[in-house]
Amino acid sequence: MVRAYVLIQTDAGCAAEVTEHVRGAPGVGEVVAVTGPYDVIAQVEAADVGVLGRTVVDSVQAAPGVVRTLTCPITDL
Amino acid sequence: MVRAYVLIQTDAGCAAEVTEHVRGAPGVGEVVAVTGPYDVIAQVEAADVGVLGRTVVDSVQAAPGVVRTLTCPITDL
Amino acid sequence: MVRAYVLIQTDAGCAAEVTEHVRGAPGVGEVVAVTGPYDVIAQVEAADVGVLGRTVVDSVQAAPGVVRTLTCPITDL
Amino acid sequence: MVRAYVLIQTDAGCAAEVTEHVRGAPGVGEVVAVTGPYDVIAQVEAADVGVLGRTVVDSVQAAPGVVRTLTCPITDL
Amino acid sequence: MVRAYVLIQTDAGCAAEVTEHVRGAPGVGEVVAVTGPYDVIAQVEAADVGVLGRTVVDSVQAAPGVVRTLTCPITDL
Amino acid sequence: MVRAYVLIQTDAGCAAEVTEHVRGAPGVGEVVAVTGPYDVIAQVEAADVGVLGRTVVDSVQAAPGVVRTLTCPITDL
Amino acid sequence: MVRAYVLIQTDAGCAAEVTEHVRGAPGVGEVVAVTGPYDVIAQVEAADVGVLGRTVVDSVQAAPGVVRTLTCPITDL
Amino acid sequence: MVRAYVLIQTDAGCAAEVTEHVRGAPGVGEVVAVTGPYDVIAQVEAADVGVLGRTVVDSVQAAPGVVRTLTCPITDL
Amino acid sequence: MVRAYVLIQTDAGCAAEVTEHVRGAPGVGEVVAVTGPYDVIAQVEAADVGVLGRTVVDSVQAAPGVVRTLTCPITDL
Amino acid sequence: MVRAYVLIQTDAGCAAEVTEHVRGAPGVGEVVAVTGPYDVIAQVEAADVGVLGRTVVDSVQAAPGVVRTLTCPITDL
Repeated sequence: MVRAYVLIQTDAGCAAEVTEHVRGAPGVGEVVAVTGPYDVIAQVEAADVGVLGRTVVDSVQAAPGVVRTLTCPITDL
Repeated sequence: MVRAYVLIQTDAGCAAEVTEHVRGAPGVGEVVAVTGPYDVIAQVEAADVGVLGRTVVDSVQAAPGVVRTLTCPITDL
Repeated sequence: MVRAYVLIQTDAGCAAEVTEHVRGAPGVGEVVAVTGPYDVIAQVEAADVGVLGRTVVDSVQAAPGVVRTLTCPITDL
Repeated sequence: MVRAYVLIQTDAGCAAEVTEHVRGAPGVGEVVAVTGPYDVIAQVEAADVGVLGRTVVDSVQAAPGVVRTLTCPITDL
Repeated sequence: MVRAYVLIQTDAGCAAEVTEHVRGAPGVGEVVAVTGPYDVIAQVEAADVGVLGRTVVDSVQAAPGVVRTLTCPITDL
Repeated sequence: MVRAYVLIQTDAGCAAEVTEHVRGAPGVGEVVAVTGPYDVIAQVEAADVGVLGRTVVDSVQAAPGVVRTLTCPITDL
Repeated sequence: MVRAYVLIQTDAGCAAEVTEHVRGAPGVGEVVAVTGPYDVIAQVEAADVGVLGRTVVDSVQAAPGVVRTLTCPITDL
Repeated sequence: MVRAYVLIQTDAGCAAEVTEHVRGAPGVGEVVAVTGPYDVIAQVEAADVGVLGRTVVDSVQAAPGVVRTLTCPITDL
Repeated sequence: MVRAYVLIQTDAGCAAEVTEHVRGAPGVGEVVAVTGPYDVIAQVEAADVGVLGRTVVDSVQAAPGVVRTLTCPITDL
Repeated sequence: MVRAYVLIQTDAGCAAEVTEHVRGAPGVGEVVAVTGPYDVIAQVEAADVGVLGRTVVDSVQAAPGVVRTLTCPITDL
């Protein structure tokens, strides 16, 4: 099992739409809008890093209004 | 009650329009054009961080000419 | 109640020590090492934004090896 | 009369000390710790831009723990 | 009286047009093309910081080909 | 099994020492000096993302002369 | 013989298409999607640095969805 | 006589066209594609800094596919 | 004759000392403290680009408190 | 045969010493101080990319005052 925080920058004003779009997608846990240089942060869980990558591409980057995503896999030291 | 400074970058030449658009919106206090890497700085006040987020999206990021916003909630140490 | 993700950059090789130091501090939830431009991500919860600020300063920034922290309060749209 | 927002980055953990040091200095209005890429934001007022510069150097940059300051004079369009 | 240096980035190849457009505008002194990360540097003078801001918006940012401007008011220590 | 490319910045002149130090460590495959903004690139393999994290900290970041590492886990789409 | 790692940034959501497009091109070895600030990393091999350059331009940069590439030739100390 | 290195970033895949376009222009010496964060580097020579500026604008920035140029005049200590 | 604007970043609080140190040096015209990402801007004039380079090194970079300088020769289109 | 431009950032005021130190080293051609974000640019030639790497480390990065080097191998399209 792999978990990651995905830091998302959106076009100005699109945080709500992106949050709605990403929430509830398979493998996606909490999705919240935040302040700071990122607009939305999502927690993603997957069977392995490969599925993690596909989840980020299919469920997060595909959301209209997403400009850039930065996936930070948890190495859980 | 939560307060924040919102640092705003606009398209070249749009500082005045953005200032006009944002001024007077609910929850928005002083809005001024500035020099430096940011074009406009607004003070926003909200009942809680959730309302703060919506105010920034609805009242600031929605203004035509806004390129990027950086919300800095006051932690008031 | 206010929640935030705190993105932490550490000196090279200090992710484990910082994670240990921050874990269990009052108001601090999950603290994990991650890959990518950040080394550790912590979830922090506080009664209000003021307490959030103090928690970040006292419990996170005080950890030896912390270079920079970026607090992203959740606006929960 | 000139007013400016001064965005301040401090060494990790020094936001409180810097806020204390800067608060109450002549020409300095509100000084608050914030979250995001800046640690403290101060409002400074001066008779003219020259005095503004001296105030920033003498009252803000002189505070132990200040790494970088970014002064954004208000052009009040 | 307030003076400022305005550092200007233009679209590739537009330095000459921007220099022509800005030169001679009210409140604008020397305007020259430069090498380095900026393409044009203008000296602007105004009765106060408010007029300075309007001059930059109306006379500099309005020039076709201007991508970004960075106004550096002189604090003349 | 998880694989990752680890992009390493070193102090000026330390690429050879870092390459020597990291080569042959458990879980570390090819380690080579490169030109460009990174000085060394290592391929790391681990049973899971947790072991990956420890390998990067213990075998790469611990090498004298390492300034910053950027771990890019392969998601193998 | 010259080898290089090519770090590739793609438009959001295009990592899979770029990986498909680049894989199998002459001179191109492993091509994988990754997490972090880069989306895809390819290993390229060429007779000399000139052929390396052409391979990157013709086989990697030509792939639809590629925004920026950073070629890191291996100097193999 | 003034000489300068002009560091050129191009749209992805355009290094060859830009090199062709710039090569042979008056005042332009060697023009080569390179790897790293820049795509092409040209050596330019001119009677004085003014002519240098015009050469960069007319012969380099005018080339289709040029995104940004950075002119580094040689001060030849 | 070559002229250039030299953009100077100083250690926090050192703008006044740097301005004093640089003012009056041979080849150096106006030297003023400014607000924004640069702390001091100097105008330098020299017989040619070589002398310009030496002036910047000897009269500007030598000033205690100077962190980084960015010389922008005027190409005077 | 491989050629590269090496872009060098030095500590403030060290351009001359670095230029002196690097000039004349085996494999090193022209070495000149420049204005702009880089302080010195060297042309390096080597039998292959491996020797290129060693030359940069041994003859350029070893020079006192060198902060960062960026090697741009010529791909000679």
